Amino acid sequence: MNFKMSTLVTKPDFQGEFTASILAAAASPDIISFAGGLPNPVSFPIPEMEAATKKVLAEKGAIALQYSSTPGYPVLREWVAKRYETMGVYGVTADDIIITNGSQQALAMVGAAMIDAGDEIIVEDPTYLVALQSFHMFDPKVLPVTINSDGIDCELLEKTVKEHPEAKLIYIIPNFQNPTGLTYSKAVHDRAAEILKGSNLLVLEDNPYSELRFEGEASPSFGAELGEQCCMLGTFSKIVAPGMRIGWICCRNKALREKLLGYKATADLHTNIFCQMVLAQYLADNDIDKHIEKTKELYHQKAQFMMDCMRKYLPAGVTFTPTQGGMFLWATLPEGITALELYRAGLEKGVAICPGDPFYEYQRNVRTFRINYSNSTDEVIEKGMRILGQVCEELINK
Amino acid sequence: MNFKMSTLVTKPDFQGEFTASILAAAASPDIISFAGGLPNPVSFPIPEMEAATKKVLAEKGAIALQYSSTPGYPVLREWVAKRYETMGVYGVTADDIIITNGSQQALAMVGAAMIDAGDEIIVEDPTYLVALQSFHMFDPKVLPVTINSDGIDCELLEKTVKEHPEAKLIYIIPNFQNPTGLTYSKAVHDRAAEILKGSNLLVLEDNPYSELRFEGEASPSFGAELGEQCCMLGTFSKIVAPGMRIGWICCRNKALREKLLGYKATADLHTNIFCQMVLAQYLADNDIDKHIEKTKELYHQKAQFMMDCMRKYLPAGVTFTPTQGGMFLWATLPEGITALELYRAGLEKGVAICPGDPFYEYQRNVRTFRINYSNSTDEVIEKGMRILGQVCEELINK
Repeated sequence: MNFKMSTLVTKPDFQGEFTASILAAAASPDIISFAGGLPNPVSFPIPEMEAATKKVLAEKGAIALQYSSTPGYPVLREWVAKRYETMGVYGVTADDIIITNGSQQALAMVGAAMIDAGDEIIVEDPTYLVALQSFHMFDPKVLPVTINSDGIDCELLEKTVKEHPEAKLIYIIPNFQNPTGLTYSKAVHDRAAEILKGSNLLVLEDNPYSELRFEGEASPSFGAELGEQCCMLGTFSKIVAPGMRIGWICCRNKALREKLLGYKATADLHTNIFCQMVLAQYLADNDIDKHIEKTKELYHQKAQFMMDCMRKYLPAGVTFTPTQGGMFLWATLPEGITALELYRAGLEKGVAICPGDPFYEYQRNVRTFRINYSNSTDEVIEKGMRILGQVCEELINK
Repeated sequence: MNFKMSTLVTKPDFQGEFTASILAAAASPDIISFAGGLPNPVSFPIPEMEAATKKVLAEKGAIALQYSSTPGYPVLREWVAKRYETMGVYGVTADDIIITNGSQQALAMVGAAMIDAGDEIIVEDPTYLVALQSFHMFDPKVLPVTINSDGIDCELLEKTVKEHPEAKLIYIIPNFQNPTGLTYSKAVHDRAAEILKGSNLLVLEDNPYSELRFEGEASPSFGAELGEQCCMLGTFSKIVAPGMRIGWICCRNKALREKLLGYKATADLHTNIFCQMVLAQYLADNDIDKHIEKTKELYHQKAQFMMDCMRKYLPAGVTFTPTQGGMFLWATLPEGITALELYRAGLEKGVAICPGDPFYEYQRNVRTFRINYSNSTDEVIEKGMRILGQVCEELINK
């Protein structure tokens, strides 16, 4: 039978459909996939998690399996609040933290709390495709601001902020921007902070990768200067384990925080408390920095090897930005070839990349594409890049 | 600073505010609370969960901690599909099941997929307050249909369905309806099925409590006759552990299922796979029916004791429906006293009940209230009821 479904789920969703098709293709075991963004399972602290689960169930099992409160487990929120000091943001308290079902839920929550249909929002261009997808649910008018090699284009940012005083929020990823892998320079950061300060914009700063820096200098959090104007998103997915779906929002604006909590209470009551407690126990009993150090070494080696292979196998016309951390490389094809062509031709030969298109609000048939290096063995990286190089050659010579 | 937030989170939300205030009051350790709906932690299979987590991490740790797919863990979905046979619904497959972050997320998902602002939906009156809250997010026009002692009022249902051919969905809880604890009789079920069949309504059947029947006969699922017209919601919260936040939607309509999956993919990507795998392992290694049997014995005894205390301590003018299972009793005050008055006066004396008001879409200052019996010791039940009895007397004699 044909149900008459809502506009929300029946309107076209370029990002959603694109992601679904890419993930479906990349899921085949015969495909070498550089398209996704999976952490390397070698980095998962499995025995430590086993010890943590055992302890939680033995000591606090009746709490870990019971209903819990919407903001999340106080001990874990305390840990997250304290962690902000390592990023130069002081004075965050556990009260400011809401634990979410991955930081993806945090994006949807902020979208729900801030965006009415037709409202303007500002995003980096390109930006994280799932963020676009989450915001699109609420039908905003999206104003993209170009990303340069040193961060967001401040001239365009200033113009956009000035011309759109009613814009609701700006979504930024100052460290290892997804998909470009770029980091805001200190100068860009300072200038952008100046522009944003005093505006009515909620500054939504996403930060999934900054703990995974193996080179260069971190860009400071806007949360330091902008205070409650800046909501900071975070996640344990990239430093501990994504399967637990534990992310957070740090929101120091009380009115907004209460509305976010109200929305989450209705959306799913609370994030699973069992995993929250296991994670808190793991963090209490282990040296997370040492763990992150090991993951960084692994990713550094992989990034290095991926870049070596790209230099060796890809035709000279293909350029890319060397990475200093995170999980991705961002490459550009020579004129005349689109990333979608490379995607399709690559897939036929058994290698998946992520074309740039869904990361842009408006641009299509772009020449940029994203390569993930965190989750492949060296053998797979080399084999995949060799094939991709051949595919590129063929497309260039066509 | 004052952000201009969305209409979604700033519009009045009677149910949400009510629930928040009740939960806040009931959370105080000095309060005897019959207001919530917590399972008794005595029923949590803690050592079995410990064995299951150990096994999952040792054998499949890298999968349990990694990103996973939106529909959920295939083994768990298989189990759920098969379980429907015990309820007389045959032919359900794992493909029909979407694992959700508690069945509360399932309510929000169906609301999102079906309701545009102004759309009509039909609900039982009274009904589960969180369902109302979830649907309200999407601004429907709610058409309530009275619940009688043998189930939904079929005359009114027929009239409503006939007069509102464009209504999108009907939300029903045929077994141990929340809040009334009532179960549809076979006659009411058959008549209601007849009325709903052939309509354009999506029949959303919620069923959190039917496994907890210690007396009387279960009402059959509408899923048996109505096929893909009926979406069935379920949860492990009441039979295993709510803290894991594992519920599900069984949706056999392919088009709707795809939209539900798309929405969930954007809302939070997937339900935590670690808990899904632990739960599946627990179900594989243990006799869940034996476990449920033990929980039922516990709740039966508690229900019995609560009813004894209500008969002993509450004034004669207070009536209630004897329960045959689930976790709640539904009581009615004599004319002249509202449940809100009892709630406020009770709270002052240290006992919380759940007034009926938020379970109704339109009725306010009702005389009905809900009592939870699953999560209190006998001592607490007796003490709380004695106090509540005194409070009632005082209100009657005022």
